[in-house]
Amino acid sequence: MADSSQPRTARRAERRRVQGAPTTPAHSQPLIARFAKFNLIADADVERIHAASLAVLEKTGVVFKSDAAIDAFRSAGARTHGQQVFLDRPLLEACLATTPAQYTLHARNPANNVTIGGDFCATMPGGGPPYVHSLDGVRRPGTLADLENFCRLSQQSPDIHVIARKAVEAQDVPVAVRHLRCWQAALTLTDKPVQSGFVNGKAEAEDALQMLAIVLGGERAIDGVPVAHCSVNANSPLFYDTPMLESLLLFARYGQPVLITPFVMAGVTGPTTLAGTLAQHNAEVLAGVALTQIVRPGTPVLYGTATSNIDMRNANPAIGSPESAQSIAICAQLARYYKLPCRGGGALTDSPIPDAQSNYERMFTLLTSLLSGVNFLMHGLGILESYLTMSYAQFVIDLELLAMLRQFVQPIEISDETLALDTIHDVGPAGHFLEAAHTLRHYRAAHFMPHISLRQPFEQWEAAGRQDATQRATGRCRELLAGYVKPALDSTLEAALQAFVERRTTNVAR
Amino acid sequence: MADSSQPRTARRAERRRVQGAPTTPAHSQPLIARFAKFNLIADADVERIHAASLAVLEKTGVVFKSDAAIDAFRSAGARTHGQQVFLDRPLLEACLATTPAQYTLHARNPANNVTIGGDFCATMPGGGPPYVHSLDGVRRPGTLADLENFCRLSQQSPDIHVIARKAVEAQDVPVAVRHLRCWQAALTLTDKPVQSGFVNGKAEAEDALQMLAIVLGGERAIDGVPVAHCSVNANSPLFYDTPMLESLLLFARYGQPVLITPFVMAGVTGPTTLAGTLAQHNAEVLAGVALTQIVRPGTPVLYGTATSNIDMRNANPAIGSPESAQSIAICAQLARYYKLPCRGGGALTDSPIPDAQSNYERMFTLLTSLLSGVNFLMHGLGILESYLTMSYAQFVIDLELLAMLRQFVQPIEISDETLALDTIHDVGPAGHFLEAAHTLRHYRAAHFMPHISLRQPFEQWEAAGRQDATQRATGRCRELLAGYVKPALDSTLEAALQAFVERRTTNVAR
Repeated sequence: MADSSQPRTARRAERRRVQGAPTTPAHSQPLIARFAKFNLIADADVERIHAASLAVLEKTGVVFKSDAAIDAFRSAGARTHGQQVFLDRPLLEACLATTPAQYTLHARNPANNVTIGGDFCATMPGGGPPYVHSLDGVRRPGTLADLENFCRLSQQSPDIHVIARKAVEAQDVPVAVRHLRCWQAALTLTDKPVQSGFVNGKAEAEDALQMLAIVLGGERAIDGVPVAHCSVNANSPLFYDTPMLESLLLFARYGQPVLITPFVMAGVTGPTTLAGTLAQHNAEVLAGVALTQIVRPGTPVLYGTATSNIDMRNANPAIGSPESAQSIAICAQLARYYKLPCRGGGALTDSPIPDAQSNYERMFTLLTSLLSGVNFLMHGLGILESYLTMSYAQFVIDLELLAMLRQFVQPIEISDETLALDTIHDVGPAGHFLEAAHTLRHYRAAHFMPHISLRQPFEQWEAAGRQDATQRATGRCRELLAGYVKPALDSTLEAALQAFVERRTTNVAR
Repeated sequence: MADSSQPRTARRAERRRVQGAPTTPAHSQPLIARFAKFNLIADADVERIHAASLAVLEKTGVVFKSDAAIDAFRSAGARTHGQQVFLDRPLLEACLATTPAQYTLHARNPANNVTIGGDFCATMPGGGPPYVHSLDGVRRPGTLADLENFCRLSQQSPDIHVIARKAVEAQDVPVAVRHLRCWQAALTLTDKPVQSGFVNGKAEAEDALQMLAIVLGGERAIDGVPVAHCSVNANSPLFYDTPMLESLLLFARYGQPVLITPFVMAGVTGPTTLAGTLAQHNAEVLAGVALTQIVRPGTPVLYGTATSNIDMRNANPAIGSPESAQSIAICAQLARYYKLPCRGGGALTDSPIPDAQSNYERMFTLLTSLLSGVNFLMHGLGILESYLTMSYAQFVIDLELLAMLRQFVQPIEISDETLALDTIHDVGPAGHFLEAAHTLRHYRAAHFMPHISLRQPFEQWEAAGRQDATQRATGRCRELLAGYVKPALDSTLEAALQAFVERRTTNVAR
């Protein structure tokens, strides 16, 4: 189908494009779900879960292990008993009234700013796994070099909107200074917004905000301007611990977006029945959301979920299960009910390796997330083994899955030109379209062009070495890493970051 | 979590159940999508595609290579030109007015009758692949023994509702008598409804109906009682060939359900743009539907789709593509628009082996089909390599995917018992639910229990031999085949089938 009248270099460039060789890094492309969102349960059932959560908040309450949080709740009029907080409907409604339904997350390169909320679905790689599934297929502890590699891969992909500051735990860096090195890697190797993720207490939170301020124009420039999400997980059931609360309080004071994400495991940290687990989950989210709004009304806050079940045979979490997908769909409905942006799902699996299981499970949770209206896909790439492992090959496969999903939901143009009635008439019954002028006008842009998925005769596949998709992804990953181009960063800012890291490292070492 | 007060045999039975050993064959369990269906495009765009199809039918027309079909169209008032038929809106509307929105497909065991239409989603294995991906991982021509094996696997699964008479091409049986041996296998090894699928002309269609009559109570018993779908593919663009029409005419005369399934490949047998390909596809479906209703008003007919794109690099079909998923979703919308049951999707992939690709692609098309309201998932199990290969291991993986989807869409009970507010209160903040009475009451039935998917500590997986999901499925397939139990069939009927096959074999050989 190549047009032989093209000059040779153009043909070569076209061939390269079509064959999927590395290309110049592109800006993020939004993933937009313009359709009516999928509702797994009826509106009346959403109301019933809401009512049950209110009953939990009024009667059972939630424990906050932080005097500052308790003081905040008290000052807002909540009833407290020691560190247990009881919330009633009027206070909750007042807090929910100040949450934004949509906001912009700012990047150091404004071309990579991301909208969170509405029809937008932003994606981020997995965050937090202690292990890496290497390009050699070995599972080993994560390192700073791995984290840097995942930053490089993330920078290049138009389908990754937010960088994971902790795509893996950099276990070769001492714990006390690890967060500094991770922030430095993410802020220098990429120019997209960076996810703070879990922050281990006040000092780490302060370091994070200071490093963000360095590259984004100073402390004032980030005050009330969303630049980094902080992740706050409830310790289910109904409990928020001190480090989580310290980071919540500091991020909220700066008007930085807070992700409230209970990770209830039905049968262990919540009731076995999904209805009960979601009622408790929802109560935990609402309590966290309330605190953010008491601290600073209008602070962006996301309705998060990592809630699922366990395998009753061994009590292992089951994050790629049908119950996980149900939980994603229903939490997205609850988030819509409260007019909150939703974080959920991602590419989830319990498989230890990038195999058939890891791919049917992750496509299940990914597609459910997108159709259900999740706005922020954390763990959108690379995750294996119930969040314990980050895989290079799976990461590159996931780039393909996200690109497939973007193509799937992009608006289908229905116009005289695309309906092509004249062409259909000219070709006529039993004809073919290969040489039609309409085909030549459209074939380049019309269809998704995969990098990993094969469609080719069996004999060609055999002759090319019988590689499976995971092996092909491994090869492509090496190409992508080799093709990485570091984005521009003012050398003064880069030096300032370096100086900050050195100073803090010295302080910590003292 | 085992209740040690149970007697030992009960505990053993429970352990067997939980560990997923073969169990007694179960009747089919319906897959019911009780939610509002997913709409990828706006209603106005559905109307535009409909209007474009009407224009194609009025101006360009469709060729039917059958004098009997042309006579039927003429008698209904259609304009014809040789074998080209032009349909106008009034005639089409009259034909659409007599199609049933829902019907029951009858099995020789009434417990396995299946509802087609409404919120129901019936599944059938792949049909027609010439090759098999064996349990040893080798691709080779399909045999009658393979077909029999897929019948045995299908009979056992509650998630397979319709048996594929041609799950593979039995290439070791001479073409002239192959259909007889396939029907005999499907009708004796299973007691679920059997899919006729493609029928190569009038003689084969007559044999099919006679063999069905033998096991279902005589010719009168199947006249107007749906017992087997016949598949009719248009030869796109806008062309129906003689063998397809012969079987359509005979099946419709018996009131047997007809599947009208264009397999348009955008860019080759239809315009490159999806809008144009779907306008043409829809015109082809409407023309076929009209013929069924002219032959016998009220004949069940399904709106089918196998339409997708090709890979522009090598012109290979791309059935696991985002465009394939778009086509499934939009055709389901078109079917709803016409109040026709919809056949589409299935577990589709272009991968030659049961790997990561075959599993992310099939979960994409499967879940899209279910959420979009497809009523009949043909090719729901086993398909690899763009319909060319049927895989044992993938078949068993697909059993798991269908079971996951059934769990996902089953209604979630929201009641005082499942909301469990008292239990949440009693456990309280930072407690756990493992020993709660509520957990003991519910844990057995609450969650999906996989046969293939693992959720277990990495070290356990390593110690157990590091099998990937495909290897585990291969092992389970051997277990399922060993555990097969042939369903009862009256020996007189079985002998009558045998006699019919022998008589026809002799006739054909003459």
